[in-house]
Order: sequence, then C-alpha cells, then structure tokens
Amino acid sequence: MLQLDTVAIVGVGLIGASVGLALRRRGLVRRVVGIGRREATLRAAREVGAASETTLDLAAGVAAAELIVVCTPVGRIAADVRAAAAACPAGALVTDTGSTKAAIVAALEGSLPRGVRFVGSHPLAGSHRSGPAAASADLFQGKLVLITPAAGTPPRDVQQTGAFWEAIGSNVETLSPEEHDRALAATSHLPHLAAAALAAATPQELLRYVATGWLDSTRVAAGDAELWTQIFAANRGHVLAALSRLEGQLRAYRTALEAGDDAAVRRLWETAKEIRERAKPPP
Amino acid sequence: MLQLDTVAIVGVGLIGASVGLALRRRGLVRRVVGIGRREATLRAAREVGAASETTLDLAAGVAAAELIVVCTPVGRIAADVRAAAAACPAGALVTDTGSTKAAIVAALEGSLPRGVRFVGSHPLAGSHRSGPAAASADLFQGKLVLITPAAGTPPRDVQQTGAFWEAIGSNVETLSPEEHDRALAATSHLPHLAAAALAAATPQELLRYVATGWLDSTRVAAGDAELWTQIFAANRGHVLAALSRLEGQLRAYRTALEAGDDAAVRRLWETAKEIRERAKPPP
Repeated sequence: MLQLDTVAIVGVGLIGASVGLALRRRGLVRRVVGIGRREATLRAAREVGAASETTLDLAAGVAAAELIVVCTPVGRIAADVRAAAAACPAGALVTDTGSTKAAIVAALEGSLPRGVRFVGSHPLAGSHRSGPAAASADLFQGKLVLITPAAGTPPRDVQQTGAFWEAIGSNVETLSPEEHDRALAATSHLPHLAAAALAAATPQELLRYVATGWLDSTRVAAGDAELWTQIFAANRGHVLAALSRLEGQLRAYRTALEAGDDAAVRRLWETAKEIRERAKPPP
Repeated sequence: MLQLDTVAIVGVGLIGASVGLALRRRGLVRRVVGIGRREATLRAAREVGAASETTLDLAAGVAAAELIVVCTPVGRIAADVRAAAAACPAGALVTDTGSTKAAIVAALEGSLPRGVRFVGSHPLAGSHRSGPAAASADLFQGKLVLITPAAGTPPRDVQQTGAFWEAIGSNVETLSPEEHDRALAATSHLPHLAAAALAAATPQELLRYVATGWLDSTRVAAGDAELWTQIFAANRGHVLAALSRLEGQLRAYRTALEAGDDAAVRRLWETAKEIRERAKPPP
C-alpha cells in the first residue's frame, strides 16, 4: 500500500483539491501541501480538507515533497513542472493532470535537474462544477487514468505513477503521449468543440424553447474559455482530424435530408445509436 | 379546476402514460382509457396506474372520451387523430404531443367530422428512458407546453387545450405551427442530429476513453431511429437551415485552428459559453 510523507499539489482547483482529499481521507500521506496563486482558493482548499497546509510560494511548497502533482491549466503545466523540479528534493516524482500530453511530455523529456522524474497523467474524471469547494474524495474512484510515458521513461517511474492513482481508486492504462492526444481529440476535445458550436448556432430568441436534449448536448460548452483555448491549441492537428470526421457525418445527413432519403437518415441514426450504446455507461 | 369524466390516450409510451398518471394522481378524471397496439405495453401502463382500463381497439377506446390525447410517433399522429375523430363523441377535443407541428396541423385543419376539434400540442418534457414503466406523474410539472393552433382554430379550443396541460402542472405558450417547427429545429432537432453525428464520428476502438463530456453530448443519440427519422422528415427545411448555422460555427473553428489563431478560438468559445449560460437551467 502506498505510504507517503509529503505530497505537494500545484493548483488546487476541482482536480487538485480532489487529489488532496482522496489522499488524506484514505490516510495515505502525512502532509499535503496545497500550492496556488490566490489565497482565496488556498483557503477554500484548506476548508474542504484537501490540504494540511497551503502556500503561495511554489518553491517552498515542494521543498520536502516526494510526490508533486501539477494540476494547473494545460498551458502552464510544463513551466510549473520545471519550477517544481528546481526546488524539490533530488529524485522526487512529478506528474500532472493535463488534458493534452504530447507537447508537455516533449517539453520536459530528459530536461529535469538532479534526478527529478516526470511522468504525465490524465485522469478521465471531472464534474460540471469547478474549484476546490466542488472537490470530492471519490472523484477518481473507478475512473480511468491514462499514464503517458516518454520513450525513455524508466518502467519503475511509470509503475510508481500508476500506484499513486490506483491508491486513490483509479484504473490505470498506459498510452504514448501521441496516442493519448489522438484518442482524446475524438473522445473529449471534439465533443467540447461540437457543444460550443451547437450552443452558438442557437438563435438567442429561441433559448426559451430548449429542453433536456439541448441542455445535455451543450453542457460542456460552459467550461472555461482560457482552458479550452489552451487545449485546442496544444492538440490542433488531432482536433482538426476529428473535426473532419464530424463534418463528414454532418454532410451525410445534409445529403440524405436534401434528397428526402429517409432510409439513409435511418441508417445514419442507427449507426450512431449503436456506437452510443456501446460506450461504457457513466459510472 | 379541470374535471373530466373520460380521457382517452392513444399511445401509452413514456409521454402518454405520464399524461394518464398525472391526470389520475391529481384526481382530475374519472376514467383514463389507454389505447395501444401491443398488449404488453397496455399491461405495463395499467401496472403503473397510467390507465384505469386499456384496449387495442382505438374506436372502442375513444367512444366515450371528452378529451383524446394522441401520443404516437410523429409519422402516425394525423392518421390516429382522424381515426379517433371518426369514433369519438361529437364535439370532443383532440390534441397530440408530436415534436413537429406544421405538417400535422395542415393535414387535419378543418377536416374532422361532427364538430370534433383538434389543437396541436408539444410538451417540452422527456426522459432518457422510454416506455410506460418510466412514466412519471410529475413529468410535465413546471415544463413548457407549446400549443400550436391553426389560423382558424377558435380561441376557446386553444384555451381548453391549455387548461388541460396547466391542470397537470405545465406552463403553456402559444405559437403558430410554423414558428414551432422553426424553433424546435434549433433547440431540439439539430441537437439530436449533432449528437448522432458526434457519436458516429468516434472511432470504435477509442470508445473506452470517453468520459462525461462525450457521454453528455451524445446522450440523445440513443433515441429511437424510426421516431427521429420521422421527425427529421417532417421538419426537413428548418432542420437544414439550423444545420447550416452549425456548419458555419464549425467552419469558424476550423479556420481559427488552422491559422493557430487562439484569440479567435477564445472569442468563439466565449460566445458559446454565454449562450449556454443564458439558457434556463434544467429544472
């Protein structure tokens, strides 16, 4: 069983605070140091029990940490990992929770000082809510976490990263950073883009007539603009490839509808329904 | 307060059975006759308490009804209303719950015998589940029901139809059938089409990596193929116009992503987020 003395969490929003809470509730760690840029967020993280102590000073916060989990937005992760590596104990393990992986792993591969080790992670867990007040000790329970080693990452570092996630209830799978980004473009980034496009395609005077279908299909368009701009920027190529597949499907509907070809519409729908039903249900 | 002797419900799936249950639980009616084409469905409707009696014989079922609610799929509604009108008492009021209105209202306008009156309705209420076992007496509570009179429908018939829906907890608004179909193309039919296109655009080997975003955004793609083929066929023109708006939004994302124009991506997202947040929350 995982037993750690000090874990530092950089960024204590929903994900970071849930990591801290999960570690503390399970008694896996003596100290959790929450690190952030706003005192109000740190206070909220302490109040929900996500951290035993907090600090605005990243270097001081990671000084005694064996494990550092960087939970900041995608565009800041590589810089935050480098700052943590410069101040943490020699040989410490650093992981992250970013939604894209190839650019982050490439930026950090083989470049950290004093034997500090980095292995990228991406927990497929979230909530419609954000911030430490929404944290849950069970956020990762039964959820899949993708671990994305670089070509040269030692198997022992991958194993230790996986053991951390498994200790807080997750299932772990290893993918290359490139495989990860290709997969997530289809299963997460495109759905977010499509939700935003669908919301924006709705004339405002008609919003009073939306029902559960529109609300479900556009839910993730309420996400943070800066975060999603960074994710799309970091995974442009794969997102554009996934977008091409969606455009192809929409063209097929357009062609069938313009021709009044009900049999073709029905076939398109049946294919989609089968795929929807084959996806694992929400836990 | 609405008090009726006999109401007949043609089609006792989720919507029809919920109408029956809502009327009976509120004590608004002495008899609810459930009419269907399969004995198993009728039995399930009786078991949940949605009907006091049931029959496979539409003419017999409507013979004593003051109010008839036709809850069959869009493609069958006009024929079912005509069959009900041929067998029900003179002057009875018939309404429906179909998701498209212009074709149905046009097919029936001024053509029913013996003073039988028809006023189209569309409750913006539903569930991810279907069938009478999923029925709820509160399905329409606080939900909007759109009433779509033809140009020549007497105001008294509109008022009586609205009073029925209000008696089971709904809020009522009147739209022309054409306005209704234009609005619902944007707020319901396009979201269903987009959800199906998004599901079908997902390579099957990647389905294991979907999370809540994909699951939310594709949820309604699990709907019935025949029902959605009928709805798209009945509202082709407006659905194609709404699809053009979605295609325009996706083109804007493609252009911004191909140019690496993060500021444009952020603006697109912010517009969508504002629209998403302006829509009423799910009750």
